[in-house]
Amino acid sequence: MEQGNLFVISAPSGAGKTTLCRRLLEQIFGISFSISYTTRNPREGEFNGIDYHFVTQERFKEMVSADSFLEWARVYDNFYGTSKPEVLSRLELGEDVLLDIDVQGARQVRRLFPGTILIFLLPPSWSVLEARLRGRGSEDSSRLKLRMANAKSELEAVHEYDFAVINDDLLRATEDLKSIVIAQRCRTPRTLARQGLWFPTQKVNQ
Amino acid sequence: MEQGNLFVISAPSGAGKTTLCRRLLEQIFGISFSISYTTRNPREGEFNGIDYHFVTQERFKEMVSADSFLEWARVYDNFYGTSKPEVLSRLELGEDVLLDIDVQGARQVRRLFPGTILIFLLPPSWSVLEARLRGRGSEDSSRLKLRMANAKSELEAVHEYDFAVINDDLLRATEDLKSIVIAQRCRTPRTLARQGLWFPTQKVNQ
Repeated sequence: MEQGNLFVISAPSGAGKTTLCRRLLEQIFGISFSISYTTRNPREGEFNGIDYHFVTQERFKEMVSADSFLEWARVYDNFYGTSKPEVLSRLELGEDVLLDIDVQGARQVRRLFPGTILIFLLPPSWSVLEARLRGRGSEDSSRLKLRMANAKSELEAVHEYDFAVINDDLLRATEDLKSIVIAQRCRTPRTLARQGLWFPTQKVNQ
Repeated sequence: MEQGNLFVISAPSGAGKTTLCRRLLEQIFGISFSISYTTRNPREGEFNGIDYHFVTQERFKEMVSADSFLEWARVYDNFYGTSKPEVLSRLELGEDVLLDIDVQGARQVRRLFPGTILIFLLPPSWSVLEARLRGRGSEDSSRLKLRMANAKSELEAVHEYDFAVINDDLLRATEDLKSIVIAQRCRTPRTLARQGLWFPTQKVNQ
């Protein structure tokens, strides 16, 4: 059996990644999120085990020591990490896995798994990005500036990514994402592995 | 402006390629067939300029001499060829082009354009393929055997192709084909070229 594909999606905060990923997972089967571990506090409406695994700094450090993360990073004052056993076991079952991680994490994962498919999500324009960050409301002015500066440096990483999707229209962007996932499943080795019936060549001569 | 993508689709005769390609072109924009030149006679229901450009052997040979073909081949007693100027001019306008050619032709085209995306269409099983070839009715027994042998050797070329799509369900196979085309449009360089607004970086610091 062919392994599943590992996809990474990255975007500057405010590009609309969360909504888009949820749509993707609603619309196609055989792909699931790996839920990150984080030490930050849940925001309103966030639930443990759904949005993140919320853990203490102590627990997080234990997991780092146990080499339990595929990638992990410190962002501002918090830690974020992707569970290695969770991802690997799904891939081995032939399931696709989607990671929602930043540029640094994407680089770490691709170093470990060169076959990882990297997707960068772009907001339609810089001013839309700024408006979305402002609209979130939770940002004071200096925090907003920090995030904008961060977004700018993240954007430059787009050239390292295989695919870039512009989130100017939710339906179209969802279609683009779905197409990227489906197309990877049509790669020749994966199709032939799925369709084992085709290639015992002896059947051909019966 | 970014060039369009060049797609080649190949399949053993009877895999359902014609129907599938027509569906693809009906459902997405910005991609068109390059209509092949051939010296064979039109079958019933085929029209010049739609199914093929039907030409004489003499005219075909002139075109070969003039280096007007991206690829050409002799199949049984007939010649088939793809017009080079027609394909190149569309690609330069940013349009995708789809070529419906055999394995030999695919190899010629990829040698000239290494960025060509090769798609192989597989019938759901060997017995389905045989049934479809029989069903066509125009084949006597020895001709059928020849075509089956030819199909077998063509099938072995699937490993040279980037993508393999199984035509077991017309809707799903159409979806697969569309996804392959759309995903290629989401390749980072092409997205950024389309969205020129993103990367004059000076806009970022306004």
